[in-house]
Amino acid sequence: MSKRIFTPGPRDERGVLSARIVASAREQFAETGWAGTTIRAVARAADVDPALVYHYYGSKENLLDAATTPPPRFLESVASAWKAPLPELGRELVKNMLGAWADPEIGPVLRSIVQTAAHEPNTREKLCRVVEGSLMGVAELGADADDRRLRSGLVASQMIGFALMRYVWKIEPVASMSDDQALAAIAPNVQRYIDGDLSKPLKRR
Amino acid sequence: MSKRIFTPGPRDERGVLSARIVASAREQFAETGWAGTTIRAVARAADVDPALVYHYYGSKENLLDAATTPPPRFLESVASAWKAPLPELGRELVKNMLGAWADPEIGPVLRSIVQTAAHEPNTREKLCRVVEGSLMGVAELGADADDRRLRSGLVASQMIGFALMRYVWKIEPVASMSDDQALAAIAPNVQRYIDGDLSKPLKRR
Repeated sequence: MSKRIFTPGPRDERGVLSARIVASAREQFAETGWAGTTIRAVARAADVDPALVYHYYGSKENLLDAATTPPPRFLESVASAWKAPLPELGRELVKNMLGAWADPEIGPVLRSIVQTAAHEPNTREKLCRVVEGSLMGVAELGADADDRRLRSGLVASQMIGFALMRYVWKIEPVASMSDDQALAAIAPNVQRYIDGDLSKPLKRR
Repeated sequence: MSKRIFTPGPRDERGVLSARIVASAREQFAETGWAGTTIRAVARAADVDPALVYHYYGSKENLLDAATTPPPRFLESVASAWKAPLPELGRELVKNMLGAWADPEIGPVLRSIVQTAAHEPNTREKLCRVVEGSLMGVAELGADADDRRLRSGLVASQMIGFALMRYVWKIEPVASMSDDQALAAIAPNVQRYIDGDLSKPLKRR
């Protein structure tokens, strides 16, 4: 294979190429994990020279980091959903989750984080930090800090399990139910984790 | 590396060696996926000759199958939990899930299925079949077959998400809450998916 000499292109070309590299890295890390992913394979799948990948990202660590970092507006939307009044919080968090996974710039990153975290310890730690961080937005949640962390964790358990079945594993009929149906089905359960009595069964109609 | 000649050992030695091989395969498939796993690496980690792995399992396909098949008593316990009366079903399913993951012979297999499924399509299909099959045990569930499948899928979304956070990713405090606390927290949510009105919010205290 002959090496092409790297010449920096115009700004927008750089954007296009680096997006292609990151998208290819996302696939590779998700499918073959940290150990199984090589810069060379990422470059091949993105149809660029490996030297360009090094030039843009410097190392495999940085490339993994870029591949599993959602755009800032994702965390902004999570933070904004957490500002909802407590009685509507379940609904807002689920709505935000459905919107994020359907977003063409956010969904693939979330998918990549979940898949890579399954078998890559650094991404797993990153996922834990994202989950723990993004779910502790409201001081009013729970009786104290321990209760708040527990409730946040339970919220995450439902949201992650649902996202995994719907968007990553695509198990039917969860994969193709409408967003409205999903919201009606899940939001009340998430809401119970937010402000329900977790030591007692619920009253039901 | 010198090849040892394989001589079949006594029955219990075979049991010990094949268990060691399968345990090593579970780790490898979970960490490096289908493509990244070699019989040679599995044999090395199990401290046996690669020829022995071929002798016992014949192929990488069979080895993956053995590594991701839970003992029969797991499916038996799931089937038995599904026989609970509908109003207690949520509780019985969660109890069974907690017991299965804590079981030293079942937990590692479930962990391996979930981790391998993240990046290995055949295991993902197997997982889908296990989830769909094991969760459709009761004809009384739901108004019709579609409703039943949807409710089963929602039950699975909560159980898998919780298991992932607690047993695979080990995110605190979900990882170390007691089984009793987990049961009280989750069973009512699972129960709502079983017989609640999924189109309306719940009445709460």
